[in-house]
Amino acid sequence: MKKIYQATNRPSVGNVNNESPLPPAGEQSTDKADVSRRRFLQTAAAFTGGSALAVGMNFTAKAEQMTQGGTNSNHGMTGHTGHTGHTMNGYGSMMFMEGHSMKPGQIIEPPGSPSPNEVDYKVFDIDVRIVEHEILPGIKTHLFAFNGQVPGPEFHVTEGDWVQVNFTNNSEEMHTIHWHGIVLPYTMDGVPMVTQDPVHPGDTFVYRFQAKPAGTRWYHCHWSTPLHAASSMHGAFIIHRRDEPLKQRFPYTRDYTLMLESWDIDFIREEMNGLLEGMKEVNLLMAQGKLDYRTHGFFKNYAEFKQAVESGDYVAPYLQSRSSGVEIKPNFFAINGKSYPATKRIGIKQGEWIRVRLINASGLSHHMHLHGHDFWWVAQDGNDLPEPRRINTVHVEPGGTYDIMIHGDNPGFWTFHDHKTVHARNNGIYPGGMLTLLAYEDFEPSYTPSISVDQ
Amino acid sequence: MKKIYQATNRPSVGNVNNESPLPPAGEQSTDKADVSRRRFLQTAAAFTGGSALAVGMNFTAKAEQMTQGGTNSNHGMTGHTGHTGHTMNGYGSMMFMEGHSMKPGQIIEPPGSPSPNEVDYKVFDIDVRIVEHEILPGIKTHLFAFNGQVPGPEFHVTEGDWVQVNFTNNSEEMHTIHWHGIVLPYTMDGVPMVTQDPVHPGDTFVYRFQAKPAGTRWYHCHWSTPLHAASSMHGAFIIHRRDEPLKQRFPYTRDYTLMLESWDIDFIREEMNGLLEGMKEVNLLMAQGKLDYRTHGFFKNYAEFKQAVESGDYVAPYLQSRSSGVEIKPNFFAINGKSYPATKRIGIKQGEWIRVRLINASGLSHHMHLHGHDFWWVAQDGNDLPEPRRINTVHVEPGGTYDIMIHGDNPGFWTFHDHKTVHARNNGIYPGGMLTLLAYEDFEPSYTPSISVDQ
Amino acid sequence: MKKIYQATNRPSVGNVNNESPLPPAGEQSTDKADVSRRRFLQTAAAFTGGSALAVGMNFTAKAEQMTQGGTNSNHGMTGHTGHTGHTMNGYGSMMFMEGHSMKPGQIIEPPGSPSPNEVDYKVFDIDVRIVEHEILPGIKTHLFAFNGQVPGPEFHVTEGDWVQVNFTNNSEEMHTIHWHGIVLPYTMDGVPMVTQDPVHPGDTFVYRFQAKPAGTRWYHCHWSTPLHAASSMHGAFIIHRRDEPLKQRFPYTRDYTLMLESWDIDFIREEMNGLLEGMKEVNLLMAQGKLDYRTHGFFKNYAEFKQAVESGDYVAPYLQSRSSGVEIKPNFFAINGKSYPATKRIGIKQGEWIRVRLINASGLSHHMHLHGHDFWWVAQDGNDLPEPRRINTVHVEPGGTYDIMIHGDNPGFWTFHDHKTVHARNNGIYPGGMLTLLAYEDFEPSYTPSISVDQ
Repeated sequence: MKKIYQATNRPSVGNVNNESPLPPAGEQSTDKADVSRRRFLQTAAAFTGGSALAVGMNFTAKAEQMTQGGTNSNHGMTGHTGHTGHTMNGYGSMMFMEGHSMKPGQIIEPPGSPSPNEVDYKVFDIDVRIVEHEILPGIKTHLFAFNGQVPGPEFHVTEGDWVQVNFTNNSEEMHTIHWHGIVLPYTMDGVPMVTQDPVHPGDTFVYRFQAKPAGTRWYHCHWSTPLHAASSMHGAFIIHRRDEPLKQRFPYTRDYTLMLESWDIDFIREEMNGLLEGMKEVNLLMAQGKLDYRTHGFFKNYAEFKQAVESGDYVAPYLQSRSSGVEIKPNFFAINGKSYPATKRIGIKQGEWIRVRLINASGLSHHMHLHGHDFWWVAQDGNDLPEPRRINTVHVEPGGTYDIMIHGDNPGFWTFHDHKTVHARNNGIYPGGMLTLLAYEDFEPSYTPSISVDQ
Repeated sequence: MKKIYQATNRPSVGNVNNESPLPPAGEQSTDKADVSRRRFLQTAAAFTGGSALAVGMNFTAKAEQMTQGGTNSNHGMTGHTGHTGHTMNGYGSMMFMEGHSMKPGQIIEPPGSPSPNEVDYKVFDIDVRIVEHEILPGIKTHLFAFNGQVPGPEFHVTEGDWVQVNFTNNSEEMHTIHWHGIVLPYTMDGVPMVTQDPVHPGDTFVYRFQAKPAGTRWYHCHWSTPLHAASSMHGAFIIHRRDEPLKQRFPYTRDYTLMLESWDIDFIREEMNGLLEGMKEVNLLMAQGKLDYRTHGFFKNYAEFKQAVESGDYVAPYLQSRSSGVEIKPNFFAINGKSYPATKRIGIKQGEWIRVRLINASGLSHHMHLHGHDFWWVAQDGNDLPEPRRINTVHVEPGGTYDIMIHGDNPGFWTFHDHKTVHARNNGIYPGGMLTLLAYEDFEPSYTPSISVDQ
Repeated sequence: MKKIYQATNRPSVGNVNNESPLPPAGEQSTDKADVSRRRFLQTAAAFTGGSALAVGMNFTAKAEQMTQGGTNSNHGMTGHTGHTGHTMNGYGSMMFMEGHSMKPGQIIEPPGSPSPNEVDYKVFDIDVRIVEHEILPGIKTHLFAFNGQVPGPEFHVTEGDWVQVNFTNNSEEMHTIHWHGIVLPYTMDGVPMVTQDPVHPGDTFVYRFQAKPAGTRWYHCHWSTPLHAASSMHGAFIIHRRDEPLKQRFPYTRDYTLMLESWDIDFIREEMNGLLEGMKEVNLLMAQGKLDYRTHGFFKNYAEFKQAVESGDYVAPYLQSRSSGVEIKPNFFAINGKSYPATKRIGIKQGEWIRVRLINASGLSHHMHLHGHDFWWVAQDGNDLPEPRRINTVHVEPGGTYDIMIHGDNPGFWTFHDHKTVHARNNGIYPGGMLTLLAYEDFEPSYTPSISVDQ
């Protein structure tokens, strides 16, 4: 049994005096918080293991389950077994009622899921914070990141496992985690105002569910999704079968996960600054017990909303001009956090089968074409296709996951890239972006690739 | 036997004195027509049953065939059996020849289809007019609408039925109806200048065909399609099988249709004003017998067109600058005419199977992701797949229809939305747009969704 | 045995004095080169058969394998059998090292492929040059074109054939050819700096490989792909089976290839001018032995690149502002080089089966909808589907090839078009673009299509 949490009183973040919402390069946003806030964060660090980076998580790198790329050391997560023993302190569903006053730092437990005394949970700790991420030499941007990693840590569990994720919000914005493609109780689904209140700055929300069904699933923030999920609160959630029938036909020995990402770093910069400024105001109002529907657009039901708009009592944000919100024009395209030529290669040996799991975290359609090989498309959204399909370009559509099997039967260096070539660019310059190489590890090349950044 | 038509002489619409092409809110465009026109319209109303809204149509709501949402009461259409007895008055294929003079108010009957004496037609009356449509509280736009509904009325017939649709153009623009995915005689296909002349203001075109093949089909205007079909001359055309084999495996008890729509309401406003102005000019020229290819770009064949351009006698519109035409940037995304939070929920009960028919009337790709469930994708373009595919995100591509089966095995409130999250926005503000809930009707919620309009 | 090549000394193109990079309409770009260059080109023409257009290629039009459309007479290529006897003169992998001096006009032979003495190659000669292409009456643009054709010539070979393609660069820019979907030795894959050096102006690169696997494959330039491949260095590469199993179920008698294209002709004009100016500078530097990584962004490995950027020694182009590169907004959409109404019709007879091979050379998604018919989608990326799928809209995604079978069971004129209707426009005007007709050749029409260019 592991007692990992202690509720803590968190001082009002309305006291934060932060002239520049985004910290300069290399500095964590938390560094700018005032003394009280730092004290809170120290407390938080204490109960999660003392490390702002690891947050008490068990990192287990499996030889056969590698994650490609990632700026930060992007280890797989396999969890640790244990029970949480602290008292259930209720469910904060009243947070957005009028005159709400904050209880920061609280731990919010889910209703209805089996208690840790009943089942053995694999426990994962994860937080969100703002980090400065380098996409390419010379290109850095601030992003929301799970455990400071881009993409977030990769979960590896077995179908039927019970999973507990302690999610701590170490940022000034609200967040949730949605478990995309996992069949779980609806109160664990992570949709703000639909299945839970958003997780406030400083709070910890406990997700508990059984991992099912098997396959390539993922997770992402569902608060302000166009910004948060894309940039870059997303990670892979791999649910392995106890027995993998696909291995009969495709005896793969390596298993890669490629998250496809796109970023409009100008939009991100502008929106994050705006949101953080706005959030300070919201936090201040909350601390003063002044938060109501006119501050943040939440209504009990549609009739109430409609009446508020029609009476002129509430001006919905879509009625205001906000041109920046209409158009998001990604200028950087990435695989596991990096753009070509910073992308990691996919290794293969002659005669080897490998599995590549492609996850679209981008919101655009990507058309991953492999040179010199046909491959087998075997699964969509985590589920095996009725029959594998032999192709050479897999169309990775928004929200979807796609698994392919590649056979190492043609030694060489083979480009693997989005055939919508505007996505194979960095800030408009080809080649770049969503492009990597399938590289055979055991052959004598007659031509050796070099790095090309302008053709 | 039902005699529904009387040919009528229609006065020149060139007399219309309409300073503001679009009527103000709440007013029908026809209200501004001159006295002669009103007289014609009264006549038209008379022969179609006296109601500008119903136009003689039989509305039959089936308990198991509900249409989701829609501003106007969007009843299913199942037709009425009957014969048309009026004289065939020829086919107006000479309308665009030089020096054409109008015969407004005429009824245009199709060549070649069985006469009403030979087969029993299910007869439907449908018109098009301009209505002001509310997408969301505070967001209204003028749209072309079939029978004043957004989307148009939903047809429900059985495979093999003979169908007659009397289509009356109660607007100042030209139109046709294309029956998307239905295998019918080409003169019924509704493509202007390819299979028929466009239907002029005041005219009625009679479509007759046998309903086949079974499945989720649809209909839309094919004149100036990027504007007319999208905004919003489109509706579902469901052809039921006499025996539904899918019910063996998926015993569904409710059947929903979701039309996916996107609107650039700035483009619509500008284009509709421009088109209506232009059409007045065309109508005037027609009344004066002056219409020829230099006024409207129709040519007997390609050689004649090419010669006209190269001689400088004709300046094709694509050679003129028209920037508004190049880019259409939808800022509102809808399901059955409404954007979240005005979208209707999809009801389901525990243990129930439901069928959801998704129709892309938008011209963009939509990626509908359901939370907390895998579902079965069973049909594309109306035809059953060789084998159903288990997924959680269905990619609803332009022009396609996609049927899915959902099993009520996970009680709760589950978000169902376009995972290209820029489409889950209203004028750039998330959440909104193409988003609704799958709502279980028979469970005790521990968290109740509220309405959120700005995250 | 056929000796087709003679190495030739090429004068420095640094001498070229060309104030206007793009020639005016109707003039070949080569016409502006100086006397020395003309002398070189005469030499080049000599060794390739004396014709700037044919370049020694065997044209063989097959009755049952027609290519649709194309500005220039777009004959199928079936090759000629023969041996090349000239000396292997090594592999120019050192071209981009510092202080490189040119050896223009050289012939670059591939390492590792069987020599012409060992196997019987089908030999094809192909070049690239700039041509002025007419998309529509009044709309002309300069494009890179294989053998001066838009799209490039169509290859027809049989699975297992040995193929030799002599590719001569008759332009001022660098190029390669990538054989999309063909499983060949990696040094033949045509990716610059990954599998070969780019082919310099005046040089000839020899590609040799065995044609496999069977199916609809294609080829395109992989240098500066967003510009070169799209505009319009692309063509079909059809590998026929010795025995076609699909003919059992679909006994087709005609075989059409439709390449789908999109062009932002403003972007093309601007970029081609810019590239040609830049290339003159590069050529000058090369002639002076001054070319190094700072001039063109090539590095031995990622570490070297990263170090160069971080030291400030090299400013990557993505770090510079280049707004034109970020957005490409196609304003013309074409099938085999032509936009509606200049597209060619697809002919069919009653009772006939036809095969249509759709190849996406556009980089956008296209949704080809056929009126009045369901058809059978039988192959993707050249490979037969596990089971044909009956649909009426085939979604032709970037990089993919899609084969469909149409049965002539509904006589008439049937529109076949991209249902993303913004692509059925010319410079923003509907109808136009990616639209053609399936036209029955043996029936008595009751309505005859005319040409419509503005609805």
